[in-house]
Amino acid sequence: MAVNSPLPVAENLKPVQGIEIGFAEAGIKKPGRKDVLVMKLAPTATVSGVFTKNRFCAAPVQISKANLATAGAGGDKIVALLVNTGNANAGTGESGLANAQTTCAALAKLLDCQPQQILPFSTGVILEPLPVAKVVAGLPDAVANLQPDNWYNAAEAIMTTDTQPKAASRTVTIGGHTVTMTGISKGAGMIKPNMATMLGYLAFDAKVAQPVLDQLVRHAADHSFNCITIDGDTSTNDSFMLIATGAGSLVIDAAGTPEYEALKEAVTDISRNLAQQIIRDGEGATKFITITVEEGGSVEECRKIAYSIAHSPLVKTAFFASDPNLGRILAAIGYAGVDDLDVTKLDMYLDDVWVAKNGGRNPDYQEADGQRVMKQSEITVRVKLARGDAAATVWTCDLSHDYVTINADYRS
Amino acid sequence: MAVNSPLPVAENLKPVQGIEIGFAEAGIKKPGRKDVLVMKLAPTATVSGVFTKNRFCAAPVQISKANLATAGAGGDKIVALLVNTGNANAGTGESGLANAQTTCAALAKLLDCQPQQILPFSTGVILEPLPVAKVVAGLPDAVANLQPDNWYNAAEAIMTTDTQPKAASRTVTIGGHTVTMTGISKGAGMIKPNMATMLGYLAFDAKVAQPVLDQLVRHAADHSFNCITIDGDTSTNDSFMLIATGAGSLVIDAAGTPEYEALKEAVTDISRNLAQQIIRDGEGATKFITITVEEGGSVEECRKIAYSIAHSPLVKTAFFASDPNLGRILAAIGYAGVDDLDVTKLDMYLDDVWVAKNGGRNPDYQEADGQRVMKQSEITVRVKLARGDAAATVWTCDLSHDYVTINADYRS
Repeated sequence: MAVNSPLPVAENLKPVQGIEIGFAEAGIKKPGRKDVLVMKLAPTATVSGVFTKNRFCAAPVQISKANLATAGAGGDKIVALLVNTGNANAGTGESGLANAQTTCAALAKLLDCQPQQILPFSTGVILEPLPVAKVVAGLPDAVANLQPDNWYNAAEAIMTTDTQPKAASRTVTIGGHTVTMTGISKGAGMIKPNMATMLGYLAFDAKVAQPVLDQLVRHAADHSFNCITIDGDTSTNDSFMLIATGAGSLVIDAAGTPEYEALKEAVTDISRNLAQQIIRDGEGATKFITITVEEGGSVEECRKIAYSIAHSPLVKTAFFASDPNLGRILAAIGYAGVDDLDVTKLDMYLDDVWVAKNGGRNPDYQEADGQRVMKQSEITVRVKLARGDAAATVWTCDLSHDYVTINADYRS
Repeated sequence: MAVNSPLPVAENLKPVQGIEIGFAEAGIKKPGRKDVLVMKLAPTATVSGVFTKNRFCAAPVQISKANLATAGAGGDKIVALLVNTGNANAGTGESGLANAQTTCAALAKLLDCQPQQILPFSTGVILEPLPVAKVVAGLPDAVANLQPDNWYNAAEAIMTTDTQPKAASRTVTIGGHTVTMTGISKGAGMIKPNMATMLGYLAFDAKVAQPVLDQLVRHAADHSFNCITIDGDTSTNDSFMLIATGAGSLVIDAAGTPEYEALKEAVTDISRNLAQQIIRDGEGATKFITITVEEGGSVEECRKIAYSIAHSPLVKTAFFASDPNLGRILAAIGYAGVDDLDVTKLDMYLDDVWVAKNGGRNPDYQEADGQRVMKQSEITVRVKLARGDAAATVWTCDLSHDYVTINADYRS
């Protein structure tokens, strides 16, 4: 299913000093699959995160936010992250919060720390009670197999409708220090992150001051997970966590230094890779689409137009059909909500093919050229607004029969 | 395909005094189907309209707006409406405007009036040049068969991906006067009207002053065509025209009178019927869904939430599958953009079944009850926000395999 997305190879996922990973098969939704993940951090680690803006944000998201805030303000440090799949613990009210706290307390007991030193995460079906007993019963197994070299298993343990695990690893040299970074992500539907994606975790072994890490995670999310969409559905459980384990030799205390800029670039690059893996494995996806809007009056209006194109079911089905019915893209630009847009100055390209000129069909445009590009599995739509210098890029996929099949059948 | 939508019967569509209808088979896209429509008005008629807010509004929309403004300001009165299917004449730049003007001039010559007394409308594929010669060649036929009793043919002549014609007729008595009203509409995809629907025409035989009719058409559109969505794609060609032929005995010179209120109610009711026919025949639709959001702080926020639910591909595929995966509805409420929404006070019902209570699963909710309602072909989602007295209703349909099939194949 996934579009030009080779499976990550376990041997290529480098362990990151200062973080150990354990997993279990707890039978939360179905038996015989990894569904509980524990990530244990060194005492030197700092953690920052961004979370969904969905008002129905899940119980574990509410608790993780609170615990991160406590740690960030100098309280008890974060000791471990706990993830379960098979149930989102969202739309579950007061009992959902109590259930999430119960799982934190159980893991805290095993790791000899306080419940507020655990960050809980859940993903799966909404509006159903978390099977707490199953999660808790799986924890001893997960703790027993904690080890640095478990990233591939971690990527598998957080999958739901994903058809393949998503992970990436890099080694970069910054100011003479070697930094190893490895991350995982998941998500294939209900993907239009607003601050973060369904679930993403990225760790590296430098030591970074908390306010600097807070700034870094926002930048990385805004340029990666916050630029992707599959179906426009912002999840209740989106979370992206950035972990500086502090176990290596690089130390960064302030933003703006050359070392910070190098780290920012590396973190953003790997975040973008993880985010794009989600789109390549989007539910039913057969094409990977890059939408770039240039020459806008503001980044905000460029994003509005890019998302309007990316969310149009008509545009997405045309990509699926490889049909250059490109007027649908103009229609989506026109209703994006940029009220003073002068369409008579607008140009549109499909890869190298100049389709629309001054708001109408380019006289030199040949349908055969559009057809050629539409048949590709990777396509770039470029829109030029002639209004200013701002630009934005969004990554998305097509809308196929399999999207309907997957989402009509998920749960059964 | 259409959901509980019986075919309109030609004999039930009453002629409206003061309006004659002609049609032709001009072979614009395919031979052998009605694709040109002419509606000729009595000299006593007034016309009001609302149009798409899409910035890529089509050439005929731009001309119709201008000609209506001229007539409304006391200039030359509107003599006829001209509609073609098979080509939207949108995204066509300057030449698109010239082409639309050419068709107006040709019809004006046949009807012995000025080109600006014609209102042109087009619907079909975007970004392709209007085949002007074919439209013009079809006009003499259309004019030759002008007659009052052609409403069913008119409904057929404006169809594109519609599987059935859409029309409705009523006779009402207002202040002792009998008023006959008949309307037609079309549209099955690219439907999320913003001011109006793809195409809708409603005529009645009372005489109504221009400013009163202008007010009436906005009210009727806001409570009918502006409350429906199939795929969230606001078309480039949406137009809803209200025609008071002035041929009957009822005369209304001012809003606010009992006669005006009675007319408003009748016009809005038949407009809603025409709008709902579009949803019932939505591309691939198997279910007709009513979404009502109550107890909101404003109508605007109620509409935001209702559209967020109505546009969610995950919600729509769950309806298609008859799967009570109702957490998807909560997620769509949560990301609707009502930033201060307190979800702990929110309740949700599916028809008579109380699903969510205080933002979580209602302890008394049984999945079997949700399952029973989801299997119906007509379903009402009711959301109570506990924030105020405002409310809004939106009508939509599900997202099925056939939507993908239809839109992956349209054009070929």
